[in-house]
Amino acid sequence: MNMLLLEKEDFSAPGKAVVRGRRFERLRDFIHIAEGKELKAGVRNTDCGKAVVVRITDNEAEVAYTPLSAPPPPLPLTLIMALQRPQTFEKVLHGAVSLGVKKIHFIHTFKVEKSYWQSSRLRPENLREEITLALEQAADPVEPELFFHRRFKPFAEDELENIAAGTLRFFGDPAGTAPVPVRGTPLTLALGPEGGFTEYETETLRRHGFRGLATGERILRTEFALAALLGKLLL
Amino acid sequence: MNMLLLEKEDFSAPGKAVVRGRRFERLRDFIHIAEGKELKAGVRNTDCGKAVVVRITDNEAEVAYTPLSAPPPPLPLTLIMALQRPQTFEKVLHGAVSLGVKKIHFIHTFKVEKSYWQSSRLRPENLREEITLALEQAADPVEPELFFHRRFKPFAEDELENIAAGTLRFFGDPAGTAPVPVRGTPLTLALGPEGGFTEYETETLRRHGFRGLATGERILRTEFALAALLGKLLL
Repeated sequence: MNMLLLEKEDFSAPGKAVVRGRRFERLRDFIHIAEGKELKAGVRNTDCGKAVVVRITDNEAEVAYTPLSAPPPPLPLTLIMALQRPQTFEKVLHGAVSLGVKKIHFIHTFKVEKSYWQSSRLRPENLREEITLALEQAADPVEPELFFHRRFKPFAEDELENIAAGTLRFFGDPAGTAPVPVRGTPLTLALGPEGGFTEYETETLRRHGFRGLATGERILRTEFALAALLGKLLL
Repeated sequence: MNMLLLEKEDFSAPGKAVVRGRRFERLRDFIHIAEGKELKAGVRNTDCGKAVVVRITDNEAEVAYTPLSAPPPPLPLTLIMALQRPQTFEKVLHGAVSLGVKKIHFIHTFKVEKSYWQSSRLRPENLREEITLALEQAADPVEPELFFHRRFKPFAEDELENIAAGTLRFFGDPAGTAPVPVRGTPLTLALGPEGGFTEYETETLRRHGFRGLATGERILRTEFALAALLGKLLL
């Protein structure tokens, strides 16, 4: 937890917030807060600032919050990603959110197992928790938007063009040769499932202006491929 | 397992290898091998090729191995990394190895907890297993060399200069401003512990020619920071 992420509901008065439950336990057991301690903090989808601990009881802490700055700017990148198996999904979501991606489209492709769509990790409350942990890690209070597309063809035919409008378009491709664009260019990056995109899917992406971006000579776990490509494109 | 990694001891005759235990179970249960099936394979620290399954019993498979190519070239980068807590160490090791780093120096720094050096994950047999899994993932048969330095000062005074000889030198730094070097330049990259390098450590690195390389505006888990920086420098 590199930032105490405050919710609007935590505030009992302007600048005065009370934290309970998981966040309180974290502050007590790992950060060993005491009255007067200053913490890096932020308010969800609002701003970054500092929180000074003013009162601690057995089950809550009250902090005085002062906004100091705007949140870090979003990565200028929309991510389109084949839905991964549950454990990998969690890592990929954490990676994408902590790296600053603010628009993530999870899609079905031929090599995505249908059962992945039933995973409890996709339930709203679980998504919210994963996202919160990643925002606390990154010290960024701004939630990403997630979108889920359960059928590839309607997604590709009816939505892809809008989603990628005004951006340079890439897909992760072991044989990719597209040059890396200038930093700051708005991008859309598509990543396939563990088994890769099919030829039909790749052709569809190419028809919409996507070009293959090399992922290196080695086969990486999805979460490492994602981080390496974001580093290559944007860091 | 994107490559069947064969050991020299697996060979009963030239081109004829027998696989048992974990690798056999993996081939049977996940890859559903049958006689005649062709697999991507490699021989540890030797070459890449193909293996054709010629015989399957209840507890072993015999394959005919044909070498086809040299291993993928190593990343031109030496990694120096503060020892992480055990779970993170495992992820970082997997990431570094699967991305193709062939020289990894784990070091002690002020903010590394002494207990990390007692972790069972550092035992040779556990290191070997982790490395094997990462090589199978990456489809690269070449093991990295690992080095462990339990004291920062002797490391910095007596070894750092040799380790980094002939390379451009960087350390991960939230405030870094060093430009990204041309691809192919031999590099040394130093990454700090969760709490970062101390000022003394940073100064020591600078004195040896290391420059701060920006890690982005967000705070990343070590394994993601590593993958993003390697992507930025080398992908």
